[in-house]
Amino acid sequence: MRIAPADVLSARVTAARAALQGSSLDALVVTSLPNIAYLSGFFASAAMLMLTQERVVLIGDGRYRESLHTRARHCPFVEVVELAPGSSYEEALAALLSPLAGLRVGFEAAHLTVGRHRYLGRVLGDAAWESRLVESEGVIEQLRARKDTWEMARLRDGAARLSNVAKCILPKVFAGRTEAEVAVEIEGQLRHAGFERPAFDTIVASGPNAALPHARAGQRRIEDGDLVVLDFGGVLDGYCTDLTRTIIVGSATDRQRQVIEHVVEAEDAAFAAVGGGRAPEAVDAAARETLTRYGMGEAFTHGTGHGLGLEIHEAPRITRARPTHAEPPLAPGMVLTLEPGAYFPGWGGVRIEDDVLVTADGAEWLTDVPRIP
Amino acid sequence: MRIAPADVLSARVTAARAALQGSSLDALVVTSLPNIAYLSGFFASAAMLMLTQERVVLIGDGRYRESLHTRARHCPFVEVVELAPGSSYEEALAALLSPLAGLRVGFEAAHLTVGRHRYLGRVLGDAAWESRLVESEGVIEQLRARKDTWEMARLRDGAARLSNVAKCILPKVFAGRTEAEVAVEIEGQLRHAGFERPAFDTIVASGPNAALPHARAGQRRIEDGDLVVLDFGGVLDGYCTDLTRTIIVGSATDRQRQVIEHVVEAEDAAFAAVGGGRAPEAVDAAARETLTRYGMGEAFTHGTGHGLGLEIHEAPRITRARPTHAEPPLAPGMVLTLEPGAYFPGWGGVRIEDDVLVTADGAEWLTDVPRIP
Repeated sequence: MRIAPADVLSARVTAARAALQGSSLDALVVTSLPNIAYLSGFFASAAMLMLTQERVVLIGDGRYRESLHTRARHCPFVEVVELAPGSSYEEALAALLSPLAGLRVGFEAAHLTVGRHRYLGRVLGDAAWESRLVESEGVIEQLRARKDTWEMARLRDGAARLSNVAKCILPKVFAGRTEAEVAVEIEGQLRHAGFERPAFDTIVASGPNAALPHARAGQRRIEDGDLVVLDFGGVLDGYCTDLTRTIIVGSATDRQRQVIEHVVEAEDAAFAAVGGGRAPEAVDAAARETLTRYGMGEAFTHGTGHGLGLEIHEAPRITRARPTHAEPPLAPGMVLTLEPGAYFPGWGGVRIEDDVLVTADGAEWLTDVPRIP
Repeated sequence: MRIAPADVLSARVTAARAALQGSSLDALVVTSLPNIAYLSGFFASAAMLMLTQERVVLIGDGRYRESLHTRARHCPFVEVVELAPGSSYEEALAALLSPLAGLRVGFEAAHLTVGRHRYLGRVLGDAAWESRLVESEGVIEQLRARKDTWEMARLRDGAARLSNVAKCILPKVFAGRTEAEVAVEIEGQLRHAGFERPAFDTIVASGPNAALPHARAGQRRIEDGDLVVLDFGGVLDGYCTDLTRTIIVGSATDRQRQVIEHVVEAEDAAFAAVGGGRAPEAVDAAARETLTRYGMGEAFTHGTGHGLGLEIHEAPRITRARPTHAEPPLAPGMVLTLEPGAYFPGWGGVRIEDDVLVTADGAEWLTDVPRIP
């Protein structure tokens, strides 16, 4: 697994510091693991990070001792604190924050739990502290939404490899195999293609299961005449890519072909609506209006897409317009999925999904696999 | 995937209601997904649940429409709310809570984020509400720690299947294969054995990588003389099992054999310390003292084990004694891992892990695979 080199991480830290100033914060307590990986290159199942204008302090535990020291060696600007045996992350964080009394310290309201927040308030002692622990929202996530050159190369590479996996797998989905067998093969191919792991639980949903947008892969045996939704992704160098194709096994009905064609048309409409400065809601509306025109608006039960990066779902959200909230406009460098679908309980369903890069005035397909089976 | 039948879920809900009363709560807002699955049998990547003495209300979104309706059909005591298109979980929850003004409503401090908490406070309006939204800690997790008969059967079955996978895989780890190739084979075998998916990212750590307790499976080619740590698990009917073996490829050195034997001895010492009413810290101490006696105390950089169930890490925690906090005693029906290890940077490492069931006066091994290669 390649990790972003020190100069790339340093540029992210510089941007994060500017964002702190923009939010009138002197420091930020980072508890979101993908945000920590973004700033420090440290990937782990537990960690905390404190960012100030002068310091980047990474807290980790003994299980990650070697990776922590490797981090400090590769990135001299990252200070590492290894938890003392038997002590907790909260304790280590409180010790770091304690000398900062008087400063405005932000925390991530979408990640810090009420329990941890109360603990910090209690340990840091007084009401003055409580008022200086400031809620912040999406400071690092906003930076992450626009990919830097290093990230774009990872995502481009991942999408190309994922497309090859799809081209290799699709011809192997035939009647008689179980969904789980196909999933095993997909996940094996992902590893062979160099992915660290699947980006999420592989979906192989056949026949009636295709009507469930979040089916997994089960013991059902694929039958002639089935629609099969295959939705899978891989993590390459920490970055997630994501692809869905729906195939028809054996002989197809006109209705099956039609639904696939309509969903493809919806995806094209969404693609045409993507571009720097445009509203995510308009992208969703473009897909939804297409399906509604074919009487399939009700059958499209989820949003049109989501950002991709260190997380499989991240900013931007490509969803229906909401009365009380508008998503920020799209910007060049964002990478997102377009994945319209139509689901008919009992009959089956269709979803088609690709990954695209937002450009100044449009978008570029990153995945490249035939959509009409 | 089998889901707990209505009578089992009903018994859990009854126990949860008693726990609410014990905590002087009239209602509990459940935002932890495993807790929601435990009470309702609904497995999804997003959901909320509100529990009162009269009602169990499950909130889900359109992606899970069919599963939601299936839940309501199978469990008449579960009311289902499907989010209106474009509306949020927080909005739906606020609408449910609004008529409860005047009651004491608990929320899960370890799961609810500060951001969601503030939102609820704001939407529900006044200071009176704020004071009645009561922090609670581990109400449902405590119930989950002791497995019911249905869960025990799932975990027993999972551990037996996992043992078979291990016995099939261990002979296939030989020089020349990459770690990733072995991981692909393990994950394929997990599927063949009926698991829904791996319980976590499979670890195949060879040679120097074996010194990293949280290594994954990479492109390194296994060499003659390597120690290889294989740590993998599967999810069966929603329940996680977890197993680690360390093997020696080709010819072994005396030191390699010794370290494995010492770690096995540490695991046996931990096993002997398990039992209803005993302290988790004493189990950890038993393993740690064994390794310390062999001069390997410093090399054991993590805790001795963790509970298993709907989550791969859940209560109880089997870790070092901490000055400020004691874990609750073990109780019959708990299922946990014992996984001592010793790691030597540059040289390699050893970890051995099994799953055990706590009984009234001891423990029972659930996994069964030779430990000395």
